[in-house]
Amino acid sequence: MALVECVPNFSEGRRADVIAALVAAVEAASVHLLDVSSDRDHNRTVITFVGEPEPVIEAAYRTAQVAAAQIDLTTHRGVHPRIGAVDVIPLIPLREVALAECVGLARRLGQRIGTELGIPVYLYEAAATRAERTNLAVIRRGGYEALQTSIESDATRQPDFGPARVGSAGAVAVGARGPLIAFNVYLETPDVTIAQAIARTIRAASDGLPAVKALGVLVGGQAQVSVNLTDFRQTSLHTLITAIRTAAQQRGVEIARSELVGLVPQAALIEAALDALMLPPQAHDQVLEYRVGAATQDYRPVPFE
Amino acid sequence: MALVECVPNFSEGRRADVIAALVAAVEAASVHLLDVSSDRDHNRTVITFVGEPEPVIEAAYRTAQVAAAQIDLTTHRGVHPRIGAVDVIPLIPLREVALAECVGLARRLGQRIGTELGIPVYLYEAAATRAERTNLAVIRRGGYEALQTSIESDATRQPDFGPARVGSAGAVAVGARGPLIAFNVYLETPDVTIAQAIARTIRAASDGLPAVKALGVLVGGQAQVSVNLTDFRQTSLHTLITAIRTAAQQRGVEIARSELVGLVPQAALIEAALDALMLPPQAHDQVLEYRVGAATQDYRPVPFE
Repeated sequence: MALVECVPNFSEGRRADVIAALVAAVEAASVHLLDVSSDRDHNRTVITFVGEPEPVIEAAYRTAQVAAAQIDLTTHRGVHPRIGAVDVIPLIPLREVALAECVGLARRLGQRIGTELGIPVYLYEAAATRAERTNLAVIRRGGYEALQTSIESDATRQPDFGPARVGSAGAVAVGARGPLIAFNVYLETPDVTIAQAIARTIRAASDGLPAVKALGVLVGGQAQVSVNLTDFRQTSLHTLITAIRTAAQQRGVEIARSELVGLVPQAALIEAALDALMLPPQAHDQVLEYRVGAATQDYRPVPFE
Repeated sequence: MALVECVPNFSEGRRADVIAALVAAVEAASVHLLDVSSDRDHNRTVITFVGEPEPVIEAAYRTAQVAAAQIDLTTHRGVHPRIGAVDVIPLIPLREVALAECVGLARRLGQRIGTELGIPVYLYEAAATRAERTNLAVIRRGGYEALQTSIESDATRQPDFGPARVGSAGAVAVGARGPLIAFNVYLETPDVTIAQAIARTIRAASDGLPAVKALGVLVGGQAQVSVNLTDFRQTSLHTLITAIRTAAQQRGVEIARSELVGLVPQAALIEAALDALMLPPQAHDQVLEYRVGAATQDYRPVPFE
């Protein structure tokens, strides 16, 4: 059975009734809801679901419909950059499906959102039709506010589907990509400029760590380095937190705690453990459950207690 | 299907033909061979296999038979404490089987080894018949050499099964226990007294870390802290390596690298990762594969690449 993962991000993290309506839209489709992560400060909700390709794009379309009806970008406030009510819809190949197939699904989903909901759609990452749009940050530059005028005046901001004007639902980026890890690190300081300086140091765009996108934000009065890790095989989570700790300590600050937004591939945690424990990479072959699964054709993790 | 794991340790890590004969004894039974780890310096081999209860004790018995025939303790040299050719045979409940059942299996296996092979058998950990024998170190104190005389002269060393005298195959400890992690940490020094001092600091027996047994040994000219972690939920692997690093740095030494002997439960690595990444313990609930497995009734880890 082919499985596609979909992780739409919505510009609403506070109103419970709107979040419930988004979740209900997923549950009404023939997919498996895996996770709902809402954040009041980012004012953002990330929903994770998996399923076969067709039901997944149906579920994604329905959430876009709900978001467009109930989320008004003209009054939305939050610390996370965003361009739309449903801000970004990534499709991720999970099992028995190729990234190229997810590109095809993203384009069909984007066309439907553009045509039927009248929302400007930008294809991104592997689904991008312009080289610069492989980078989501380029599409979101200046957020909803900048896009309101530039979508008409700036030819480079022409959407792939839908009208070249934004209403209260804004625009949406629809794409296909590999697994991404959203990892936030809180610092023992209320000084957001420290988080911003650390983010500049570690991000790939400024010759920091490969596959790392980072922002410094203020969340609940605490400085936070908010990271998207687009390839944990290029930079492990352990390398990432070690770099953040070093950069923080150079500024006299310690890490308070971390959090994951949404889900994390098991292999990313195993790799982080091997790094932290100074074990060689091939030690992943010494995981008991992998061996038992290979030997008995029945893989089951020992449950956490 | 009930699955029991068995991890016999043999006092032979150098002669390839003997190791092959031990492996062949496992493969001849209806069990799944998972791992063979041999160490020349410890002169020791750890074999891991799983299967249904009856075949597992049959396979374990056959390896004991091979070991008794081919390994001579009177000439064996190695840095690891040991009392027998097959030195220790732990049975571990893995799936749909209780620890109490493994205790019953250990006693039947021990009786057969004692009676049919004429080897003294000490039941240990959950299978122990005397309180002090829950601790394997008590049974192995002084190694094979001390046991040669004390087994006859010291009433506390009376075996549970088999004769109260040791031949060239020595004696064996047979027991039932939870999963154990064998984790060795190499130091950037040839000074074994530093590894020994660190071992004394961290071991549970000297009020160090709970569930930690540790020795300092010299392996290939490098000081090594050799640890058995009997409960990774009491002390995580990350807490363990952090304690070793701190104790080493207090002595002006850094950790060079680590190794696992045999296999490690996946949950132990996930917990180590959460600790190292400063994530809360409940973050294990954010592992993608666990959610997909629960939703689709089909758990499959994304393979390592």
